[in-house]
Amino acid sequence: MSHELIDRHQATLDRALAALADRDYWSPYPESPRGYGEPVALEPLQGLELLLDQPGTDGRVGPGSADGGERSPYGPELAVAYPHAGDPAALVAAARAAQPDWAAAGPLLRAAVCLEILARINARSAEFGTAVMHTTGQAPGMAFQAGGPHAQDRGLEAVACAYAEQTRLPASAEWTKPQGKRDPLKMVKEFTAVPRGVALLIGCNTFPTWNGYPGLFASLATGNPVLVKPHPRAVLPLALTVSAAREVLAEAGFSPDLVLLAAERPGEGLAKTLALHPQVRVIDYTGSTEFGDWLEDNARQALVYTEKAGVNTVLVDSTDDYAGLLANLAFSLALYSGQMCTTPQNLLVPREGIGTDQGHRSFREFVADLSAALDRLLGDDARAAALLGAIVNPGVLGRIEQAEKGEFGELALAPRPVAVPDWPDAVVRTPALVVLDGAEATLPGECFGPVAFLVAVDSAARGVELLAETVRERGAMTASAYTTSPEVEHAVVAACLDAGVSLSLNLTGQVYVNQTAAFSDLHGTGANPAANSAYCDAAFVASRFRTIEVRRHS
Amino acid sequence: MSHELIDRHQATLDRALAALADRDYWSPYPESPRGYGEPVALEPLQGLELLLDQPGTDGRVGPGSADGGERSPYGPELAVAYPHAGDPAALVAAARAAQPDWAAAGPLLRAAVCLEILARINARSAEFGTAVMHTTGQAPGMAFQAGGPHAQDRGLEAVACAYAEQTRLPASAEWTKPQGKRDPLKMVKEFTAVPRGVALLIGCNTFPTWNGYPGLFASLATGNPVLVKPHPRAVLPLALTVSAAREVLAEAGFSPDLVLLAAERPGEGLAKTLALHPQVRVIDYTGSTEFGDWLEDNARQALVYTEKAGVNTVLVDSTDDYAGLLANLAFSLALYSGQMCTTPQNLLVPREGIGTDQGHRSFREFVADLSAALDRLLGDDARAAALLGAIVNPGVLGRIEQAEKGEFGELALAPRPVAVPDWPDAVVRTPALVVLDGAEATLPGECFGPVAFLVAVDSAARGVELLAETVRERGAMTASAYTTSPEVEHAVVAACLDAGVSLSLNLTGQVYVNQTAAFSDLHGTGANPAANSAYCDAAFVASRFRTIEVRRHS
Repeated sequence: MSHELIDRHQATLDRALAALADRDYWSPYPESPRGYGEPVALEPLQGLELLLDQPGTDGRVGPGSADGGERSPYGPELAVAYPHAGDPAALVAAARAAQPDWAAAGPLLRAAVCLEILARINARSAEFGTAVMHTTGQAPGMAFQAGGPHAQDRGLEAVACAYAEQTRLPASAEWTKPQGKRDPLKMVKEFTAVPRGVALLIGCNTFPTWNGYPGLFASLATGNPVLVKPHPRAVLPLALTVSAAREVLAEAGFSPDLVLLAAERPGEGLAKTLALHPQVRVIDYTGSTEFGDWLEDNARQALVYTEKAGVNTVLVDSTDDYAGLLANLAFSLALYSGQMCTTPQNLLVPREGIGTDQGHRSFREFVADLSAALDRLLGDDARAAALLGAIVNPGVLGRIEQAEKGEFGELALAPRPVAVPDWPDAVVRTPALVVLDGAEATLPGECFGPVAFLVAVDSAARGVELLAETVRERGAMTASAYTTSPEVEHAVVAACLDAGVSLSLNLTGQVYVNQTAAFSDLHGTGANPAANSAYCDAAFVASRFRTIEVRRHS
Repeated sequence: MSHELIDRHQATLDRALAALADRDYWSPYPESPRGYGEPVALEPLQGLELLLDQPGTDGRVGPGSADGGERSPYGPELAVAYPHAGDPAALVAAARAAQPDWAAAGPLLRAAVCLEILARINARSAEFGTAVMHTTGQAPGMAFQAGGPHAQDRGLEAVACAYAEQTRLPASAEWTKPQGKRDPLKMVKEFTAVPRGVALLIGCNTFPTWNGYPGLFASLATGNPVLVKPHPRAVLPLALTVSAAREVLAEAGFSPDLVLLAAERPGEGLAKTLALHPQVRVIDYTGSTEFGDWLEDNARQALVYTEKAGVNTVLVDSTDDYAGLLANLAFSLALYSGQMCTTPQNLLVPREGIGTDQGHRSFREFVADLSAALDRLLGDDARAAALLGAIVNPGVLGRIEQAEKGEFGELALAPRPVAVPDWPDAVVRTPALVVLDGAEATLPGECFGPVAFLVAVDSAARGVELLAETVRERGAMTASAYTTSPEVEHAVVAACLDAGVSLSLNLTGQVYVNQTAAFSDLHGTGANPAANSAYCDAAFVASRFRTIEVRRHS
């Protein structure tokens, strides 16, 4: 098969396939803003009108409609207009109509088109960074990286993984069965990967591209048209994504309706409507446990991939790099104000204290040391703002205020308002540390945002048990442990394997438990209640298509 | 990793992995009874007491209990006793207790143990053939092949597929990320495949081993203990399987409770009880649509793989080998009295007739020719019995009688009783052909057993439409078409790809639409209502385990 886009992207695809198998560091998308041109300000994005020519459009979402549209967590209105579809079924019908040609294109051309979409998005990373910053509240540096190149990495990973799985069977095979003295039986068999049907991506508020691209590109690469239903507070990054995809699809001779934006006005419940449509056969969702559970229970005609809420635990037993531990933990707690599904929340520390290269530290000393580390990290407002970003929504702010009032337990480190240069209306807070030092009570459930709990436990062994219980009962996206004891390490590894969570051990440098690298780390496991799938293993893509065989005598 | 069983089976595993990728003919299990010793009579199996030492056993299923146990479709009682578990949860608990050591064994040793189980079963193929014959009613030759080597092929295929998917990620990987002038970040990452939990195999009456082994071995090879709940009329083949598995597991140093028989007394509804147990996390089922739908709707804590009922269609448009077509179709209809989920049922033939190398044949001439081909094939009772086998249950016999009375339409070929040498009580009938030649009415729904419908359609194009509609609305395990027209071929291939069924084109020799070969043909597609999965693609195994990552600085 020859096609200009295949020629352009074959080498990248091959390299991505090798990276998937090797799991060493690799990315075709540089993560430094250098080379992506000047930063893009918010102003050129404000007032955009995007995708208003989509099929089924009967009006606008955003300015001019009742709600007025997105507002940046940094303050300003975005004032971007998106298409509104009066009849959601029209979106499904347009997507379904686009499917046959895309299905017929085959896995390689589909992969090449997806890589071209990602390349176009990559070239516009500065713009995506600004869009992500002003919908999620991420600080500019993180919005660029996580919303730009790192999200693109996860998209490319899904494309490569989908290509690999679709090509496990040869397109055509000869079959010759000996028949003793008679002529052998000879058949030719053709294997064709076919899509399941229309896919639906339901985006989240905090990582619209990073959490959106795996499902979007896995579905698209396996031949399924995709309806993109963004979170109402984070439409712009996915609308820009849909624009780029439609542009490339049309240029490549396919219907742009293979990717459609499904924006909604307040109260429309569009995700539910689309999720129950009989032609919607694949759903990817990141968000609350409540709606994820609803999807799993009700969208029975579809494959449903969910990433929901969890409670991430850190076990602190001992370390030979106490300064590194404190710095690493403080950074993990501060990054994007703890508004990551991977942020540690419950820090389990033996009541008797921990062994360190700076001597034994009591539980209370550890609390003080971690508080001091956070103070050091976040003492300067400008530096703090560049790490914390803004509080994404009033729910998170409410929990910070509860912590401040002592409603969650003893407040060991109070959250502090931070002023952000240029964005006086941004709501920014440093993390709160809450100490739970009584007889072991119920561990805190999910408390999304910058509130971490330092929990005294009877022993490291008891901490291991509590970590596993938390994973099993509440789910977790990450687990972390610090120990120099082979016994404790063995126990915590065994507990994580059994409970079903991935583990970071003794992180004291520039790798943080909340961050995973595409092509190497899996994000989630699918083995505990926090998520039923992982970015990006074979299980994430292998059921998005089916294989049809045609056989005949040769 | 070194282990005697790995040494013994590594080459077979490697060859199986190559076969999975090549899709050429291969099997390590010869399909001829020669080399498997003398045929095994029924008598030595009658009166066996199997597995009565399983945990949780509080009595017997079979002789000595209320129902008396299995009766051969050929007449005799089997009188084999199986264990009864008073508390089904005890089986789940025993299985779950056996899981950790098996999980820790890793994919390679698990595959080797599975291959040893299959080798033991293979060596006893003659015994399995007899057990399958006298539970399913298959004729001896088919019972041996389909219940023995061909079932073992499907089991091995599942083991190899599971091994391949579990080893896509390396067990350990180095990750080095450049940091400009600073030292690179270096991590070591370990990836471990972990099981989901207890698996449940719910067996069927007609192919207890062939339809049972894919799920059984896919689950076991991915680390999940398996509860084997056989169909009450076909316990023996799976009980022998469980015996062999437990023997090998114990010899290899694992708990035999990794594979447990869950036999039941009439009315206990054990499949439902086990399917809803919270620790049952994977279910494989072959059987009625009604119960398959129930499982999918209710066993929400588990991955559910179902093969249910469908309606298989043959489109007859034209042929350059009319004699071959007739002989092939007659064989397909007669084999095991049409009691295969893959048997063609609705034969769509243009009302204007078909083009052949013997000239044009009208619809009515085709009906007469196919009837004559069936008469030729089945004219001799002994030969007929060796192909037809016995009617498996009263439900099938009832439908034959309905056909005979003309209740399904015009009876073109009446079913004929066939006397079976040695088995005077066996109920054997030749297939009935029913003609539907009115204005196109509703096509017949599923009519499991030896009743085929010859349906006059307005044109080949209309036949293609009806084939696709049938697949979409009623599901299908197979589709077949005869045509010399490139246009019709193109249309039927496109229809099958779109509707989601695999297609056999112009079968006129010794390959039959009802038969698929492991390592080459997929059985089912998972793309239409007849089944949600296929033997055996990556999707069939990739979600039976999850991958847990442990990472640390190197």
